[in-house]
Amino acid sequence: MQITFQPIGTIHTPYREKAPYQPVESDEGTFFLEMSPDYEPGLKDLDTFKYIYVLYFIDRLVKEVSMDVAPFWAGEIEVGLFASRSPLRPNPIGLSIVKILKVERNIITTSGLDVFDGTPLLDVKPYIKDLDSKADANYGWVDKTGDMRHLALHILGIPHEY
Amino acid sequence: MQITFQPIGTIHTPYREKAPYQPVESDEGTFFLEMSPDYEPGLKDLDTFKYIYVLYFIDRLVKEVSMDVAPFWAGEIEVGLFASRSPLRPNPIGLSIVKILKVERNIITTSGLDVFDGTPLLDVKPYIKDLDSKADANYGWVDKTGDMRHLALHILGIPHEY
Repeated sequence: MQITFQPIGTIHTPYREKAPYQPVESDEGTFFLEMSPDYEPGLKDLDTFKYIYVLYFIDRLVKEVSMDVAPFWAGEIEVGLFASRSPLRPNPIGLSIVKILKVERNIITTSGLDVFDGTPLLDVKPYIKDLDSKADANYGWVDKTGDMRHLALHILGIPHEY
Repeated sequence: MQITFQPIGTIHTPYREKAPYQPVESDEGTFFLEMSPDYEPGLKDLDTFKYIYVLYFIDRLVKEVSMDVAPFWAGEIEVGLFASRSPLRPNPIGLSIVKILKVERNIITTSGLDVFDGTPLLDVKPYIKDLDSKADANYGWVDKTGDMRHLALHILGIPHEY
């Protein structure tokens, strides 16, 4: 079974050679989603939300997918691929949560996004408080590293190459 | 540009004719993700997380995609498609957050999922507290309806057909 999608637009970021691991809200530069003009009417009311999910095709992968991953910031810990947010996945669909800064015509300007410039956009969904914000979520194996500082660095976005 | 994915497994739910709009944590029945056996090693450590994101292909759509949607529970409000969580999207990628109940071999048993039995699974990602739980998220246009009871009903899962 093959599932086929087409981009609904393109993501623009300042990142050409290196990109952070996760969205860096305060990062400098301009980040925006350029939707295909046909989809402009679909953006009505989107700016009433503070956060959105951005789904995209991680198109600049050069390494092979492995079922074990060892995030370099996590010391010697090796975990299963699906217990990680590694971009090297069987279906490389990226998922980032960012703030909406403004919506004008077919352009959504956002806070920092963790993707390369030119990344194909697959979907935009509103992040809705009760549905998506799980106050009782945990840190999983990351807690076991005993070094949450690494997670913080990770979230703050150490530049990297895929 | 065409982007092609293949399912990494199948989602099993009790829903054959009707499914709720959003995950219903307490719903009766068994909900599980059956991963392709090749991906079983990738599930290591996944059970250290309380919540996961489940990404899937919404394969049972019969209506046409429209850039305006009017969620029936939202009164007379019409909003842009991308300001909604409607399954009828240009790229019908579903995104649900569920609790992990257990992981055994290539099977992830979860709390209630809002999809039809047999839905093709695209990806599983850990939901990580600091990264994904936005305490300052809002309700967007849903707040404008002045009737949050409808949102609650929606989240609690009024059965529906696509």
